[in-house]
Amino acid sequence: MIKALRGAGPATLSMLAERTGLSRPSTKDVVDDLTSLGWVEEVPPAAGTMGRPARRYRFRADGGHLVGVDIGAHNIRAALADLDGNVLAETRQAARPDAPLEERLAAIKRAVMGCLDLGGPTMSDLWMVAVGTTGLVTPEGRIIMSASISAWKDLNLAGLLREMFPCRVLIENDSRLAALAETRRGVARGAGDVVFLHIGRRMGTGLILDGKLHRGFGAAAGEIVMLPETRWVTAPDDLNGCAIVPKGTPIEDAAGFTLAAARNGDPTALDAVGRFTEKLAVGAAAAVLLLDPEIVVLGGGFSRSADVLLPPLRHRLERVCLRMPKLRGSTLGDECVVLGAIDYAIDHLDQFFFAPDGPALRPAVVPERTV
Amino acid sequence: MIKALRGAGPATLSMLAERTGLSRPSTKDVVDDLTSLGWVEEVPPAAGTMGRPARRYRFRADGGHLVGVDIGAHNIRAALADLDGNVLAETRQAARPDAPLEERLAAIKRAVMGCLDLGGPTMSDLWMVAVGTTGLVTPEGRIIMSASISAWKDLNLAGLLREMFPCRVLIENDSRLAALAETRRGVARGAGDVVFLHIGRRMGTGLILDGKLHRGFGAAAGEIVMLPETRWVTAPDDLNGCAIVPKGTPIEDAAGFTLAAARNGDPTALDAVGRFTEKLAVGAAAAVLLLDPEIVVLGGGFSRSADVLLPPLRHRLERVCLRMPKLRGSTLGDECVVLGAIDYAIDHLDQFFFAPDGPALRPAVVPERTV
Repeated sequence: MIKALRGAGPATLSMLAERTGLSRPSTKDVVDDLTSLGWVEEVPPAAGTMGRPARRYRFRADGGHLVGVDIGAHNIRAALADLDGNVLAETRQAARPDAPLEERLAAIKRAVMGCLDLGGPTMSDLWMVAVGTTGLVTPEGRIIMSASISAWKDLNLAGLLREMFPCRVLIENDSRLAALAETRRGVARGAGDVVFLHIGRRMGTGLILDGKLHRGFGAAAGEIVMLPETRWVTAPDDLNGCAIVPKGTPIEDAAGFTLAAARNGDPTALDAVGRFTEKLAVGAAAAVLLLDPEIVVLGGGFSRSADVLLPPLRHRLERVCLRMPKLRGSTLGDECVVLGAIDYAIDHLDQFFFAPDGPALRPAVVPERTV
Repeated sequence: MIKALRGAGPATLSMLAERTGLSRPSTKDVVDDLTSLGWVEEVPPAAGTMGRPARRYRFRADGGHLVGVDIGAHNIRAALADLDGNVLAETRQAARPDAPLEERLAAIKRAVMGCLDLGGPTMSDLWMVAVGTTGLVTPEGRIIMSASISAWKDLNLAGLLREMFPCRVLIENDSRLAALAETRRGVARGAGDVVFLHIGRRMGTGLILDGKLHRGFGAAAGEIVMLPETRWVTAPDDLNGCAIVPKGTPIEDAAGFTLAAARNGDPTALDAVGRFTEKLAVGAAAAVLLLDPEIVVLGGGFSRSADVLLPPLRHRLERVCLRMPKLRGSTLGDECVVLGAIDYAIDHLDQFFFAPDGPALRPAVVPERTV
């Protein structure tokens, strides 16, 4: 019923009965229940309507709030969204990869509180915090290890964050969430099988298979970076360490410098881009040859220069792939992980709370263990 | 209803009502329909039963027949099965990779007719012929290309076989069918995500994801062999061309000779096995790192020597994989593709004919276009 109302404008009971396949009396019962829960509200008739118009209802996307958090090695981003996934406020803080755990946790708290301050709602309006971060994350929200955040080592991150925020907490691998965002609001919208290449100072992949986030049997899917033949671990050095980058350029700006120079035809930069895309193409080709996806999305920090990277990547993939998938640069940029976290939270809402047999309570007041 | 009866022994109406969730009168109606179609029959009461026993019914697995065919470059195999997938008869013929199309088609016809002759049923008892073959096969049964059968080039194989056999014809990639057989009757039984390594004179992979055969957007999934870094195209030469293989050994026996010598500790043969498994491990690791499957199955011709190949393969995978899946040798041997073809045909039956809204006719008399 929520799906029949979400994002589709106000609807009458007859429209909802048709969309859901329920009888009109059953539709009325469900809508009444949802209204009393605060998830649905009646919309006043349009001004100037003649006679007695049919009552119209809409999903109350502002009936609760979600925060998506991207905990990277170098940045912590957060975004506040309504229950339709519309972003209302954002924060970003720089971080140090080797920051001690307490410092990183304090930054996460500031990120979420900052969003609430900016966006207006209070902690009690917060239904869910969904986190994307680097490394091996179990479905229960425990971090086994991460190659890029030193404090991430056999850590019950979900447990720590649940002590911090009095609401539901979800944790998932960042590249997987970014891939999800591409299929919900990005260039892969509606595609069934998607390979997301998460490229930047760190390289990763996220897979969407048959429309669903692919986690793998032990939550370790998407780690083609570990295959030595890809040389993905050191690939970013080709762009960061290019000879044309001026001495003293901060590491976070180095690759952008090289990519901009390549765009302007600098031969040294073009050579660096060539070496980088050659490595990128090995891992990308492995994924394409194995899975034959509908689309490959280039995302992450370097994807702002997708115009420079896509032509040489396409050229190399065409040489080895039996069938070329669509190849697109992400348009979600640095926000891909927070947006994916928000979309993941919305999926969780749809699955556990707005489902026909879901709990008839706001998520914030349902004890964690019932999910 | 067929699922509730298949493979589970005779059942009473009460048992069937419980298994299907239907009311008892509805169960009776469906069972009566299926009986009149010849798909279900009543079983006589056991001898010596006292009083009036409940009527018992069973699925008539012998009510129709299926043939699975494996069209390889060097061999054409076929197996006749009942509707439960039990194999009743088999044939094998040697073939030449460069045989002209007419010769290959004639061999396919002999393979199927040979199975019928051996097993007893006539052509009119044949419900389905399911074929596995090398190369890129579209869902409609057209072969785009094959690296190992020269006559397989932009060929409407399904169309040709439908002219040959008056029944339903299905065509699918052979490695995918072998992977399916492993999940239905092999070492991967019941696993959700499976990577099947099809190794022999030709190398391939088949993927089962979320319990389903993964075909890919353009039916080109599983082709990691095309990634140059795997060196899979030439990997079989390590075993076939080992110095210890006696001159004049037929190519089909060469690798077996090397593997047997390695089993006995011959250092030259062990070195060849080392080089082969090093290449095998690159493609296997790419699949494991990307997908994090529950199990990897080593199948195909060389898998008869899985005892020799698995330890060095495991050793190499453990060095690069974040999480080691189960690693097992196939027990289906050379029959893996024909068995997979039979299992694929049974899936097709379940989906299109035994489904609640399927056609109320034997597949052989339903026009092809209605499926």
